[in-house]
Amino acid sequence: MWKDNLSVVLVEPRNPLNIGAAARAMLNFGFTRLRLVSPYDVAFREARSAVGAASVLADAEVFPGIDQALAGSSLVVGTASAGNRVFRQPRRLLAEAATLLRIHLHREPAALLFGSEKFGLSNQHLSHCHWTLKIPTNPDCPSMNLGQAVALCCYELARATSRLTLVPKQRRATADQMERICELLVSMLDDSGYINPRTRRSHLLKIRRFINRLDLGPEDATILQGMLRQIGWKLSQNGR
Amino acid sequence: MWKDNLSVVLVEPRNPLNIGAAARAMLNFGFTRLRLVSPYDVAFREARSAVGAASVLADAEVFPGIDQALAGSSLVVGTASAGNRVFRQPRRLLAEAATLLRIHLHREPAALLFGSEKFGLSNQHLSHCHWTLKIPTNPDCPSMNLGQAVALCCYELARATSRLTLVPKQRRATADQMERICELLVSMLDDSGYINPRTRRSHLLKIRRFINRLDLGPEDATILQGMLRQIGWKLSQNGR
Repeated sequence: MWKDNLSVVLVEPRNPLNIGAAARAMLNFGFTRLRLVSPYDVAFREARSAVGAASVLADAEVFPGIDQALAGSSLVVGTASAGNRVFRQPRRLLAEAATLLRIHLHREPAALLFGSEKFGLSNQHLSHCHWTLKIPTNPDCPSMNLGQAVALCCYELARATSRLTLVPKQRRATADQMERICELLVSMLDDSGYINPRTRRSHLLKIRRFINRLDLGPEDATILQGMLRQIGWKLSQNGR
Repeated sequence: MWKDNLSVVLVEPRNPLNIGAAARAMLNFGFTRLRLVSPYDVAFREARSAVGAASVLADAEVFPGIDQALAGSSLVVGTASAGNRVFRQPRRLLAEAATLLRIHLHREPAALLFGSEKFGLSNQHLSHCHWTLKIPTNPDCPSMNLGQAVALCCYELARATSRLTLVPKQRRATADQMERICELLVSMLDDSGYINPRTRRSHLLKIRRFINRLDLGPEDATILQGMLRQIGWKLSQNGR
């Protein structure tokens, strides 16, 4: 399975909630290989007890340095927001990056690196990367929460393979059903004095056009008919 | 600016970190209108002090009920993972949903609803929605963290491929207009004995879903309101 070829590598994460959130997001999109490079110890212990992604966290591997965490990966991609940095690696926007990464993952292992919450990836870390990935954020607020960045990358990686189930287009009520609704409504509007007898003809056309704009399915047409019948019956009862 | 037409509505959020994370993700992608429906008080106070998205949180509006939070929006979309639920509204995957929502936002306000961390959106909340949005998560771990779900939706709405040729489409009635129609109809259906008092609750939800499926423009909503008012008046006259 190509998803098993991806290692999500968190470099020096500090916040247990972020580690847990990253693990859960991975699982949300079917990724399971999490690697941590020298995490803050307490953070990792706390994260292990997080709910929702226990399996990913239990199987997470911890490495003292970035080299070891990248062993076996033939493509290394670093995530980084711009800030004022000069990047020496090619930069690709998330959507394009995800497509290339996915093609690679179908053949060979790759690593996707995320830096610490406070500092991101250093130039030292980035020197391990073949290219960098940029999430197209607002320049006024470019830096993303770690767990959310992991979620976006996993979503974008998984998206192309997810079958797009289109909403089946609703069937429409038949013209005769709509006409019956129109008749019921007109009779009630007559009873209640809504329709001015002198402009009745043009009123009827307006009402029919209105009814047809409702774009009802057959079930909804039946519901509406039922409601109108009941209200109409009550109107006629009262009128006696 | 079309992004100002989006209200991100968090219904009964409980965790200040999630409120803060949602606000930050909004700002990451250029969205600023945050609305909260009866948030847990302490959570909101703590979130206000969160770093990174101070402006969004400072301007966030708090409402006691969902109706008020939706006033002015002519399209209401609920987010919901599947679980074992049966959905009565059309469901669309995130990518398609974002495209449709973006087209709408170029013309009119819309609301995107997120449920509480623990329970998601109830059937009561969903009855206000025209359709629901599904993030295509792994069936083994379908439920996403709130802040991450907001991030994905904002990213997808803002993504670079967002240039679309706009098809002129009818404007839509606002949620408050539709709610008034719903109230009028319910009162008439009550008067005429259509609604069984024992199953009243589920009936009300069915009626609201039905009304929202009608997909009315503002003029048609006014027409329908006028008709219902007149018939309702007649019903009450007769009942005397």
